[in-house]
Amino acid sequence: MAFFRNLSKFSAIKASSTSRLRNADPFVLSSFTWLSYLSTRISDEKIEPVQCSGLGPTKPHEKPRVVVLGSGWAGCRLMKGLDPKLYDIVCVSPRNHMVFTPLLASTCVGTLEFRSVAEPIGRIQPAISTEPGSYFFLANCTGIDANKHVVHCETVTEGIETPEPWRFSVSYDKLVIALGSQPSTFGIHGVKEHAIFLREVYHAQEIRRRLLLNLMLSDVPGITEEEKRRLLHCVVVGGGPTGVEFSGELSDFIMRDVRQRYAHVKDYIHVTLIEANEILSSFDDRLRGYATKQLTKSGVRLVRGIVKGVKADKILLDDGTEVPYGLLVWSTGVGPSPIIHSLDLPKAPGGRIGVDEWLRVPSVQDVFSIGDCSGFVESTGKPTLPALAQVAERQGKYLANLLNKIGNGGGGRAECAKDIELGEEFVYKHLGSMATIGRFKALVDLRESKEAKGVSLAGFFSFFIWRSAYLTRVVSWRNRFYVVINWVTTLVFGRDISRI
Amino acid sequence: MAFFRNLSKFSAIKASSTSRLRNADPFVLSSFTWLSYLSTRISDEKIEPVQCSGLGPTKPHEKPRVVVLGSGWAGCRLMKGLDPKLYDIVCVSPRNHMVFTPLLASTCVGTLEFRSVAEPIGRIQPAISTEPGSYFFLANCTGIDANKHVVHCETVTEGIETPEPWRFSVSYDKLVIALGSQPSTFGIHGVKEHAIFLREVYHAQEIRRRLLLNLMLSDVPGITEEEKRRLLHCVVVGGGPTGVEFSGELSDFIMRDVRQRYAHVKDYIHVTLIEANEILSSFDDRLRGYATKQLTKSGVRLVRGIVKGVKADKILLDDGTEVPYGLLVWSTGVGPSPIIHSLDLPKAPGGRIGVDEWLRVPSVQDVFSIGDCSGFVESTGKPTLPALAQVAERQGKYLANLLNKIGNGGGGRAECAKDIELGEEFVYKHLGSMATIGRFKALVDLRESKEAKGVSLAGFFSFFIWRSAYLTRVVSWRNRFYVVINWVTTLVFGRDISRI
Repeated sequence: MAFFRNLSKFSAIKASSTSRLRNADPFVLSSFTWLSYLSTRISDEKIEPVQCSGLGPTKPHEKPRVVVLGSGWAGCRLMKGLDPKLYDIVCVSPRNHMVFTPLLASTCVGTLEFRSVAEPIGRIQPAISTEPGSYFFLANCTGIDANKHVVHCETVTEGIETPEPWRFSVSYDKLVIALGSQPSTFGIHGVKEHAIFLREVYHAQEIRRRLLLNLMLSDVPGITEEEKRRLLHCVVVGGGPTGVEFSGELSDFIMRDVRQRYAHVKDYIHVTLIEANEILSSFDDRLRGYATKQLTKSGVRLVRGIVKGVKADKILLDDGTEVPYGLLVWSTGVGPSPIIHSLDLPKAPGGRIGVDEWLRVPSVQDVFSIGDCSGFVESTGKPTLPALAQVAERQGKYLANLLNKIGNGGGGRAECAKDIELGEEFVYKHLGSMATIGRFKALVDLRESKEAKGVSLAGFFSFFIWRSAYLTRVVSWRNRFYVVINWVTTLVFGRDISRI
Repeated sequence: MAFFRNLSKFSAIKASSTSRLRNADPFVLSSFTWLSYLSTRISDEKIEPVQCSGLGPTKPHEKPRVVVLGSGWAGCRLMKGLDPKLYDIVCVSPRNHMVFTPLLASTCVGTLEFRSVAEPIGRIQPAISTEPGSYFFLANCTGIDANKHVVHCETVTEGIETPEPWRFSVSYDKLVIALGSQPSTFGIHGVKEHAIFLREVYHAQEIRRRLLLNLMLSDVPGITEEEKRRLLHCVVVGGGPTGVEFSGELSDFIMRDVRQRYAHVKDYIHVTLIEANEILSSFDDRLRGYATKQLTKSGVRLVRGIVKGVKADKILLDDGTEVPYGLLVWSTGVGPSPIIHSLDLPKAPGGRIGVDEWLRVPSVQDVFSIGDCSGFVESTGKPTLPALAQVAERQGKYLANLLNKIGNGGGGRAECAKDIELGEEFVYKHLGSMATIGRFKALVDLRESKEAKGVSLAGFFSFFIWRSAYLTRVVSWRNRFYVVINWVTTLVFGRDISRI
């Protein structure tokens, strides 16, 4: 394995210099003694491949182990709810934090700081940091052996300085697959290469850096008018809540901050939102009309069109129009990621992992799936739930209670839950949808479904509800405190424009 | 030029689709009309090279122009003090913010947020954002033609999506060179490739990412003991204030946060500080002793040694010792950067740009130099001042007043200052040195020089002075507010450990 090859580089650690230092002053001597201690200990333990490269099956004196794949809304809500007295919790994910996605759009323009929307997993479930049998592994899942109750993983690496990735495996008593989804590009050429998605903190960071770079480059002498207009043309593809919220934040940033702080280029910057159908299709007609009016009023150009291709500096629409852009944000929906496709497990319509009424994956033991990556199998007769944070969170909460119940009933170990009464099945009740559309304006749609009757609101009061509702959902008090501080600072001092 | 070649890609922007849309609904029509407006305007203006690729000499009805190269302590203090009623201010720098360097070490471990130590230039001198003749250009200076009063520049680019860099020039009435310095590597092989410096915000970000990555990787099953120990061995080379402050912050992070949140690896993480001579050599003997004791107590290993070479996973010392490391921070001092070497201007001892008693560069007109990149020419009989923020800031302040005086006296234009009485020459008076050495401990040395007598303090009271003194120096109220909030949050909730 590459990892062991790497290690052989350290085999010859010398400790030859200590004898020469006998007469040196105590400070230097003690330091060298320590260095030689380091060297000696390393030399004493012969370099040989580690026998167990992973976590084996739990032993009778240990707690049963729940392995959670993923650290999104579903996985994190589950981990938060699991009882660490009943289970050891092992989380495998390529990021060590949860992203509070509803507020991510606000971080791109500096309304909120990046850290305010990232919640470390150790803060969500402290047992992961402190319990001897609970771990967080910065790794990707590469496969599941449901018969042997084992998950195969590979460490995440980046840059040239990190060790080569190495593989390991983790045995589970219960497995929860919460691997989420990936952005849909509909096979459109150039989207992956040139557009930025808006799902992770590093996406928001990239959008912010690009936006500020373009603002500054467009001010440099020698630039042509059309290049300036291109650099400052921000295009958002996809009129769902994320696309609309980002467009709103961006136009607000332009109206409030760019005009003051980039006075030389303020007339060149524009935002265009491209959507094939209607914007905010899940919302009430009246709210949609309101959103369209407000966005247009704040300078966002709404364009109905279908993107056919994306190049480094322009978008091609299906009617032949070419749209030059300097920043392209893509938020047209999500689909299952390749790892979900590759897993040899029952599937639901749409390629998601199939689950029964209790969120168990049928035909295998002790495997559950929640969040965007899962859907009810056809035999349940239930519809596929939308890929929403609300659904994922509710499923995580339900499954945490279910697993705690199983654990308390003595069914925590692998293959031991067959006789446990599972109780009520998972039922999703939609609480409503919210979206902000820029400065002090938001939509709140409290109907259970598109057809149902119910309350729907738009305007400043909705904005107040939007902020309050999300603030109460921010996981930690630390971040709740920071979000409020960020909002106040932005109100008083304007947005931060340093490009770091 | 590459930039104009790039632009030719946009020449054919089509607007053929509008006619088909006559019967569409008004929303769609208005949108397409706008898109075609964009396209048409671009097509109407024929693509031809811009005649003036830069800012020419100022005209009689315009204000004289001060061009400032660099946005460090010297340049920013100067811009803050310049009177925008007297001058147009043009700043050329590869970063759009000033870094509050004394607090940079605290950001690596999450005591402070990165944004709290970055101050956008537009906030330091608002005229740069709002005055029609004042600009900030995100660019590097590539040369100076002192006879023609022209600076040559090249735009900064990054990644594959940004336009190719383009060149432009800016004429000046007065030029201030404040380009700073670069870290010294003393020609040691491997330092540039493997070590991280600590001078910019992105350095602190890299240190933080590497530290958290190593903490997480070392927890993954299958890793050997020695690889774990290597990954978690943080080495700092250079025992000046930066190296000592970073070591202190790091050991504090380990003692307070790692033990709680990375309980599985807490016994493997170590900090070693390597210095060829004495640590904190500019401080009082008693303070040095105190610092040595405190650092050792908090787990920092102090090693006296000379680094001979650096490899990707170990440092070679001159006595043959090999020190494996996972994170290497290099802070051994600074020297002139290549652009300073390349400028055809008088030099001071050590390769810095030579200046006279009034910080003017002799033998050329209207050129000044301040901060780390400048030094007194030998004929002044004055010693080279240390490369300290304190010196740079004092010079910036002095020169701002001098330029304002020149401007008020009618000498603002190029070649017009010969008859102006310059007044008092620049005299540097050292106010003392400060350094923090971890949790609630700091050193304050208020002597004017190493030989002089004066007050020197160590301990909690010094820490209080250290925090208060720097807090008052943070430029904007926004960041002052944020620094306090960060300190309070860290005290209450511990440091933030999300790796974003």
